[in-house]
Amino acid sequence: MKIPSRYIEKAVEQLSSLPGIGKRTALRLVLQLLNRTDQEVKTFASAILEMKEHVKKCNSCGNISDQEICSVCSDPRRDQSIICVVEDIRDVLAIESTESYKGIYHVLGGIISPMDGVGPSDLNITSLIEKAETGTVMEIIFALSPTMEGDTTNFYLFKKLSDKGVLITSLSRGVAVGTELQYADEVTLSRSLLQRQPFKLN
Amino acid sequence: MKIPSRYIEKAVEQLSSLPGIGKRTALRLVLQLLNRTDQEVKTFASAILEMKEHVKKCNSCGNISDQEICSVCSDPRRDQSIICVVEDIRDVLAIESTESYKGIYHVLGGIISPMDGVGPSDLNITSLIEKAETGTVMEIIFALSPTMEGDTTNFYLFKKLSDKGVLITSLSRGVAVGTELQYADEVTLSRSLLQRQPFKLN
Repeated sequence: MKIPSRYIEKAVEQLSSLPGIGKRTALRLVLQLLNRTDQEVKTFASAILEMKEHVKKCNSCGNISDQEICSVCSDPRRDQSIICVVEDIRDVLAIESTESYKGIYHVLGGIISPMDGVGPSDLNITSLIEKAETGTVMEIIFALSPTMEGDTTNFYLFKKLSDKGVLITSLSRGVAVGTELQYADEVTLSRSLLQRQPFKLN
Repeated sequence: MKIPSRYIEKAVEQLSSLPGIGKRTALRLVLQLLNRTDQEVKTFASAILEMKEHVKKCNSCGNISDQEICSVCSDPRRDQSIICVVEDIRDVLAIESTESYKGIYHVLGGIISPMDGVGPSDLNITSLIEKAETGTVMEIIFALSPTMEGDTTNFYLFKKLSDKGVLITSLSRGVAVGTELQYADEVTLSRSLLQRQPFKLN
């Protein structure tokens, strides 16, 4: 499809550089933006520019923040002795939305994946080990995705952290709440049998 | 999900205002943009701003263009006596990519849809009637989508144009090339039977 305007072409190229957006979708988005008022398009573009200009990574945990230290790390009600290790900022948001975690986070910024050329040195691991060595941390929770890469990263972190005198835990794995047992995959079902829990009325 | 940065929140709000992009997808796109360099994000935003600033609608047909008159209307090799009526700029691109049409276009900028509150006066219809009255137009092709709204618009246009002494045609409808006959819907199949064509070796 030949687009008869190089400005549209450039905008399509930029929008289709975003993950999950192809040329055709990008064109639809661009034409939708074209139908908006000048002011609306300016608001759109400046929201993106301001976001890039002002948003920082928390100096302590790597979470996103408008300040040097994020709202979780600077909250005096959060337990600084429990650190939850996650891959990505979106995992922080997901755990925060459960409202059932009162510790702080450590964002790795990725996961060990030799296939994608991501090794331990590309991740925010050194500062996690330093934190574990300060003596103030009681527990480190591994909250990485239950994939091959997640397990590899867990294994690497465990080797690095196991001699620091810190309790290391991992998210429980099992049948998801609200799903039908018959549709659970075999590995998950077998794990949830092995790691069965005393029944409690809650 | 509570986003801990109002700049991210604003950017997510803007991106999720685009059609087909929800809050969750918008957040993924915003975090991807956040990981780019300052220069890359500036290029991204300015592509959108420049597109809005420079792209015009062709004075003659309503197609997008960098000039006052679009590349199709200003092309001396195009037959100015045949006008193809389409709903949207994307339809122009679709027909252009077939490379089998040598006339010019007329973009309505929408379709008559009482459900969405779009009436004939909201569309670029008056200038089409004026063109038909000049006497230079020999044929007007209706190339609207074969939907209820498309048929309504066709009917309205036909009533307005039938006394102008211009040949009025419509895209043929039938079984799509490359599909299995058994999966064609009944209306399409019945139309393609009624409008059967002399068999030609091509």
